[in-house]
Amino acid sequence: MPPKDAPDIVVRRLPYYMRALAQAAERDQTVVSSQELGAWLGVSPAQIRKDLSYFGEFGKQGLGYEVAYLRDQLRAILRADRDWQVVLVGAGALGTALAHYPVFTYGQFPIVAVFDNDPAKHDRRLREDLVVQPVAGMEQAICDRGIRVGILAVPAGAAQEVAEGLVACGIEAILNYAPIRLSLPEHVRVQDIDPVAVLQSMTYYL
Amino acid sequence: MPPKDAPDIVVRRLPYYMRALAQAAERDQTVVSSQELGAWLGVSPAQIRKDLSYFGEFGKQGLGYEVAYLRDQLRAILRADRDWQVVLVGAGALGTALAHYPVFTYGQFPIVAVFDNDPAKHDRRLREDLVVQPVAGMEQAICDRGIRVGILAVPAGAAQEVAEGLVACGIEAILNYAPIRLSLPEHVRVQDIDPVAVLQSMTYYL
Repeated sequence: MPPKDAPDIVVRRLPYYMRALAQAAERDQTVVSSQELGAWLGVSPAQIRKDLSYFGEFGKQGLGYEVAYLRDQLRAILRADRDWQVVLVGAGALGTALAHYPVFTYGQFPIVAVFDNDPAKHDRRLREDLVVQPVAGMEQAICDRGIRVGILAVPAGAAQEVAEGLVACGIEAILNYAPIRLSLPEHVRVQDIDPVAVLQSMTYYL
Repeated sequence: MPPKDAPDIVVRRLPYYMRALAQAAERDQTVVSSQELGAWLGVSPAQIRKDLSYFGEFGKQGLGYEVAYLRDQLRAILRADRDWQVVLVGAGALGTALAHYPVFTYGQFPIVAVFDNDPAKHDRRLREDLVVQPVAGMEQAICDRGIRVGILAVPAGAAQEVAEGLVACGIEAILNYAPIRLSLPEHVRVQDIDPVAVLQSMTYYL
């Protein structure tokens, strides 16, 4: 089991390391140095070594990292060696776009159920295998399938109530597209996808 | 002028402070403590005080912060006291959804031009005031309007080339929705919006 004391900021970098390693593997590269990894990712080699040291000893001094091995290790650490079924709430323009992302269709995070409180959207088919359902049926659907991950793509005004509903249904990780800070129990992980906040932090530098 | 030595991680938190202050103002709250701000945002009061101290002296010991004043100061620091015109590249499902976000329609970051390399999409009207144009006309449109901010909503395979095109046109800040790390000159700010990397970092904790 991975140690649980790595800072969240480090955990958040691991998916990018994993992706860089996947790309290296596609190029048939078998060994990679922390210099190379760092250059690809815009991170210093020292940072790469320090980040990875939270999770074990993966490289040999002067020899670098074995691509396939490190990639497998990171996949296991991030639990990316399995699929996670996802529930989507919100079938507006954004929710519809997300439902068609390859990763949310047949990738690691398949959206297997979608809910909306707008009756006009009910029974609409977002994908061949995905029909919009009333929010009332959410709890049953989530419990039946043991889903733990949710995506929130509803307006800000509805987000807190819907999020509480997801948590009541057993959801433990929420990707939140609503431009609002959710207030939820501590055991629930929430990450906001907020393009406005990101743009506002970038214009600081312009 | 704000000092430029605040860590980026601090700059990235400021938009959330600004939003919390806006919500406080809507509730007619005139003074806020670092405890309150911290509680709303899930940040320690000490962190709030330290973050703000990079930019000046905004509060008085034991008296807290004046909501309107601090909000105005943060708006000025983040250059959120003006609108920034934005160019969007990619008129697929995601680009179309983004074009309808209120903030990208009549908010602080109006999308004023949209480009796509798919001839089937050209001349399609994404909004009443927004028609999809061929990528070939991008440079002229960006120069004519002096746009400095771009949003990239194209597939991974096209992203690097399109991003270089944007930079050649004078774009200095890119919000990147393509699941790829862009390699661009140092003066260009890039932030990735990557739901998969975020989800992968959350499943670590499940």
